[in-house]
Amino acid sequence: MTDDERLARVALTRVLEPGDELGGRWLREFGAVEVVRRLVEGREPLPGASAQRWEGMRGRAARMRPERDLAEARDAGARFICPGEPQWPAQLDDLGDARPTGLWVRGRPSLRIWALRSVAVVGARACTEYGAHMAARLGAGLAERGWVVVSGGAYGVDGAVHRGALGAGGATVAVLACGVDRPYPRGHTELISRIAEQGLVVGELPPGDHPTPSRFILRNRVIAALTRGTVVVEAAYRSGALVTARAAARLGRFTMGVPGPVTSGLSAGVHELLRGDAVLVSDAAEVAELVGDIGDLAPDRRGPVLPRDLLDPGAGRVLAALPARGLMAAEEVARGAGTTTDEAVGRLYELRALGFVERHGDGWKLTRQAMISLRGDRSGC
Amino acid sequence: MTDDERLARVALTRVLEPGDELGGRWLREFGAVEVVRRLVEGREPLPGASAQRWEGMRGRAARMRPERDLAEARDAGARFICPGEPQWPAQLDDLGDARPTGLWVRGRPSLRIWALRSVAVVGARACTEYGAHMAARLGAGLAERGWVVVSGGAYGVDGAVHRGALGAGGATVAVLACGVDRPYPRGHTELISRIAEQGLVVGELPPGDHPTPSRFILRNRVIAALTRGTVVVEAAYRSGALVTARAAARLGRFTMGVPGPVTSGLSAGVHELLRGDAVLVSDAAEVAELVGDIGDLAPDRRGPVLPRDLLDPGAGRVLAALPARGLMAAEEVARGAGTTTDEAVGRLYELRALGFVERHGDGWKLTRQAMISLRGDRSGC
Repeated sequence: MTDDERLARVALTRVLEPGDELGGRWLREFGAVEVVRRLVEGREPLPGASAQRWEGMRGRAARMRPERDLAEARDAGARFICPGEPQWPAQLDDLGDARPTGLWVRGRPSLRIWALRSVAVVGARACTEYGAHMAARLGAGLAERGWVVVSGGAYGVDGAVHRGALGAGGATVAVLACGVDRPYPRGHTELISRIAEQGLVVGELPPGDHPTPSRFILRNRVIAALTRGTVVVEAAYRSGALVTARAAARLGRFTMGVPGPVTSGLSAGVHELLRGDAVLVSDAAEVAELVGDIGDLAPDRRGPVLPRDLLDPGAGRVLAALPARGLMAAEEVARGAGTTTDEAVGRLYELRALGFVERHGDGWKLTRQAMISLRGDRSGC
Repeated sequence: MTDDERLARVALTRVLEPGDELGGRWLREFGAVEVVRRLVEGREPLPGASAQRWEGMRGRAARMRPERDLAEARDAGARFICPGEPQWPAQLDDLGDARPTGLWVRGRPSLRIWALRSVAVVGARACTEYGAHMAARLGAGLAERGWVVVSGGAYGVDGAVHRGALGAGGATVAVLACGVDRPYPRGHTELISRIAEQGLVVGELPPGDHPTPSRFILRNRVIAALTRGTVVVEAAYRSGALVTARAAARLGRFTMGVPGPVTSGLSAGVHELLRGDAVLVSDAAEVAELVGDIGDLAPDRRGPVLPRDLLDPGAGRVLAALPARGLMAAEEVARGAGTTTDEAVGRLYELRALGFVERHGDGWKLTRQAMISLRGDRSGC
């Protein structure tokens, strides 16, 4: 990806709506620089767009301002990542031409590495106490098992999931349907800031952009594609959470549902899923058992994929801070590595995804494979 | 089946415990008369029984009293039916050597015909309000759809199921783990009498016999075999209702479960089933949709199996009382046929199983096939 292509993609996040497959085709066939040039000059319409749509796009193209967007994002602690770049999660390529043009990311960890061992937990905004309780339990339980917990940052189930993961000192990712500098809903401003500090806040929309109903719906395909599976906690018929689950199923990811009373309309959508191919899950252990059971995305079954000296220096320092045997809390690892707890947690989840470490409750330890492969390094100490 | 064989089977219900496969093998290989003779004479032990077991059986054989049992049963309004007899439900033969020696039956309708369109609904004795509510709703809903509802007569879910079916003027069968003249639990004496009046009370044990833990467990195989499918409403881990569901699955019947909150231990067993091959169901319509979808047991998809003049005269009178078009309530049918409502309901469910009539809510009507095949009969009137 050249710098020009990258900048053109930044610009196009103001023009192409999330999931625009025609735009995705143009990017694939002509490249971003050429798409931008034609939009600006206006003399050679791109194939497949109606005159009206083309005019609409040209209108939006007049407001492209990639350098300013990058600067604003930087001020908000965000960066931009493009398909094919080191931090780009290859799973998103499964979306084909509906793949995001790029992603705006707030937070330190590598989205690519975190996504390797991630699960989505989504559900109703207007959930019941039961739904909130189950969401928080799953968020905490999955985090304690070393899974990265992905959700949409919304009220209700999403918020409870993120809080559960954060409360367990875990890794969580919020995928927003708006600019990552402009948390939505407003009532979650603090929660989303906390996620950006301890985890990641990502989205397709450029700085300052607002969510719309269709953006919420299309955001769900990113949640589905990013993760190994989607758990729905509570959802009425025709809920957005069901869109995520169906997108996950279409993409070959696992779909799961937490049942509830048949007498609750908020469980009706989940039960509909469970009458199809979705698997009933009662707790984090059952989720982990299901999504942990595939070797292709999971390096931990094959041993470390990277030799230690190919690790990012920050991750290497965290790895070096772990004891040869036994568990250590993230705070202590942070002290040993001379960094913050949030940074250490981010690195530990990266190392988890790469097969170097395991989480057991509140403690972290080297995996068996890591112990074997690091023995040479350590014997010299 | 000769009269001697029949009487010998009556006698053996005092000797062979429910589900005794060795006894079933003897019946198959030697016949009941010969098994009784050897037990009484004691000189030629039957093959496969240890000395201790053989002595235990001989001890019980000393208490055989078939004529008195038949008389006592008659006084309690009960009869005895044997494998191969007209009222014997052929489905029970799927149990192989664990098939009941015979069944004691209280109530007018034909068990064989009722079993053709029956579903079991079972669950926890110590159920929650939610479980009782769902059980009653399923019992009523299935009855309203013309299904015969089978359960175990116990407290909790079973009782709610029977009451739901009775309350909807429907057909219900209680399968007991004791003599049908000695209702258990005692607190259900009145309920079970009501079931015997409006439906059927059946069991393998001879008059006066008590239930035991193993008899409860083995009773469940009869519920499973008799019906097209088993729905579990609430069940803790290792509940008897799960035994019924697993027996149903082994017999190739449908297994279904009504989910509940994950936080309720009484739904844990149901959720375990639903994580296997059982289908999640939320209401009677979903149950009926599933179990109604097999043609081999369901004559209604093939039109009436019997010409009208082969019907039992009582059933024929009820059929004749129905109008050529439109719905009629059971009470009105009873008036037209000159019989009681309970008798009319029993006959209507028989006619339903044979494909002559349909139930819609509180009304009954001729099926399309019946209208066509009865046209000839009626044109003469």
